[in-house]
Amino acid sequence: MTDRIREFLAARRPEGPCLVLDLDVVRDNYTAFARALPDTRVFYAVKANPAPEVLKLLAELGSCFDTASVGEIEAVLAAGASADRISYGNTIKKERDIARAYELGVRLFAVDCEPEVEKIARVAPGSKVFCRILCDGAGAEWPLSKKFGCAPAMAPRVLELAHRLGLHAYGVSFHVGSQQNNVDAWDQALGSAASIFREMAERGIALSMVNMGGGFPTKYLKRVPKVQSYGNAIFRALSKHFGNRLPETIIEPGRGMVGNAGVIKAEVVLISQKSDDDPTRWVYLDIGKFHGLAETMDEAIRYPIKTPRDRDAKTPCVIAGPTCDSVDVLYEKAPYELPISLAIGDEVLIEATGAYTTMYSTVGFNGFAPLASYVI
Amino acid sequence: MTDRIREFLAARRPEGPCLVLDLDVVRDNYTAFARALPDTRVFYAVKANPAPEVLKLLAELGSCFDTASVGEIEAVLAAGASADRISYGNTIKKERDIARAYELGVRLFAVDCEPEVEKIARVAPGSKVFCRILCDGAGAEWPLSKKFGCAPAMAPRVLELAHRLGLHAYGVSFHVGSQQNNVDAWDQALGSAASIFREMAERGIALSMVNMGGGFPTKYLKRVPKVQSYGNAIFRALSKHFGNRLPETIIEPGRGMVGNAGVIKAEVVLISQKSDDDPTRWVYLDIGKFHGLAETMDEAIRYPIKTPRDRDAKTPCVIAGPTCDSVDVLYEKAPYELPISLAIGDEVLIEATGAYTTMYSTVGFNGFAPLASYVI
Repeated sequence: MTDRIREFLAARRPEGPCLVLDLDVVRDNYTAFARALPDTRVFYAVKANPAPEVLKLLAELGSCFDTASVGEIEAVLAAGASADRISYGNTIKKERDIARAYELGVRLFAVDCEPEVEKIARVAPGSKVFCRILCDGAGAEWPLSKKFGCAPAMAPRVLELAHRLGLHAYGVSFHVGSQQNNVDAWDQALGSAASIFREMAERGIALSMVNMGGGFPTKYLKRVPKVQSYGNAIFRALSKHFGNRLPETIIEPGRGMVGNAGVIKAEVVLISQKSDDDPTRWVYLDIGKFHGLAETMDEAIRYPIKTPRDRDAKTPCVIAGPTCDSVDVLYEKAPYELPISLAIGDEVLIEATGAYTTMYSTVGFNGFAPLASYVI
Repeated sequence: MTDRIREFLAARRPEGPCLVLDLDVVRDNYTAFARALPDTRVFYAVKANPAPEVLKLLAELGSCFDTASVGEIEAVLAAGASADRISYGNTIKKERDIARAYELGVRLFAVDCEPEVEKIARVAPGSKVFCRILCDGAGAEWPLSKKFGCAPAMAPRVLELAHRLGLHAYGVSFHVGSQQNNVDAWDQALGSAASIFREMAERGIALSMVNMGGGFPTKYLKRVPKVQSYGNAIFRALSKHFGNRLPETIIEPGRGMVGNAGVIKAEVVLISQKSDDDPTRWVYLDIGKFHGLAETMDEAIRYPIKTPRDRDAKTPCVIAGPTCDSVDVLYEKAPYELPISLAIGDEVLIEATGAYTTMYSTVGFNGFAPLASYVI
């Protein structure tokens, strides 16, 4: 929570739930990443929050951009960044979308299999490609599935095909899992990347880049390590595996760049009990899983929630959203402590909600508008 | 799949993933509900698919409407239904939204606790209220949580408060769980409702209505009972618990009204393997959890997927969506059999997707547009 957000809410009193995002925090985060890893280029993961004001600020600060679609590429270009600062980082692309990106000037693409390399060779000749490898994601609060990446043993074949088809076999990428609290999580994956570099060198192909992905956390309720600690641990791991021939490196922070910059203002709609025998209080807010808080799925992300009565005694509450959908319950397995004095109509602030909220909102499920957003 | 949808897709060749919904099927479904339960009023659950054409058709056919918000109430009124055909069925309402609904003419409200009754008494004087009770949802594929409803033992106190505050204590509601395959699931809840009627009569208050909710299934891969079987079972249960003093009744079909009326056209973006040792094929579509197929969460709903090569031999596939989000995987725990010959660029049809798709779509996560919808 920042003074600027507090003042904005006090002055504007916006009706309905909304996200307020403070660009000063985004600026501080960008600076922290740039300082912690001075030789690494920062590619902001646009999907975390593609608000035009955020993209414009980061473009001005010199950031590059990791994009998932032609739509995101167009948004980044509209924000003033040139195409050579854009990575089309989705491993799943229609051939016509690759062609469109190429037309827009993009020359850097992610792949994780041979068919994707073939598409790029056909419609984006000469482009740089990096191969994403699987990584186990241990230590992450939002663990990744096997959806992206191939087994490290398969990567040389994918990269060699790229080389044979006239593309620039540029490097390797991986992702250690979102909200990664273990600063040493990059070590093992960097070891795999270094092996692939050696294997490719034996095949006469010199890779030059390692994309170390995202995973940098935002502080929710638990403390998280500082960005500098990640920087130090990553530099140690890079030196360990690559010696004094360090590759070019890229990071793709999304949550770590904008998560703590935003606060959602919400309202208590109802407080009730289900039976006389069950003292659990149900607290219903005017925002839930379908209008921005999708990351409470399986209660994975536990947001800090501030109320106007936090000095009062607390009691365990189930917290749920306002829709007629039974899955729209935020915290139930592990109830949330809220003040006993909390009342219908109270405003609550849900902190660290700058990432993965506005874009996770539905178009209007149950007739409730998508999450409003103010960037200040 | 209907001929009209097939012809529309062949003639229009819409670009990108889209839902096509055939109003003739909605008409047939409405007629089947009206015939199966001739003495029961049908309140279409607008949240399942609020397309204006669907609301307009149902308004013309004489349907009533179950709404979750002021937004849905306004949509129903815009479709030509009068306010006396609208139930504000959400148990979680802001007092100012109740006031707005009352201003628009709505006089029927759901409650499940005393504080909600107090709000309605303050701003919607004289309205009818029904109290929702908890129901265990056994047999449902999309089971309900305890989010809505109170213990049956608490309902008489809630309804008596309504009566005391000048509201019309109108009846009881429950929901047996969505995609409910057991035609006898209504029996136990109707028994609870009848007990509450007796208890209220002893307190000198005559309830008159039972809202039997939704839960009527759509056929996905497994067969489901016909609407008439539900009608027969429900009538038997009503007679068993209420004898020859049958109450007014309401049902709230959503999925059962529109689910089988829609088909999503999608495209195969990529087919790959993760390693040489793992023969599982990964099939990536241009639609996933964030653009309409949210009900694949926990692989709850298993849609029929038709390809142009369904006569060929099949192999187990993991099916995933196109976003850079690792949770955007549709079927993995129980892989899906698809043709070995399936190729990148093939169009696939995802059937029975008329309900809970367009409105579950995000506003544009990863820069992909919300699910397009054509109502024909």
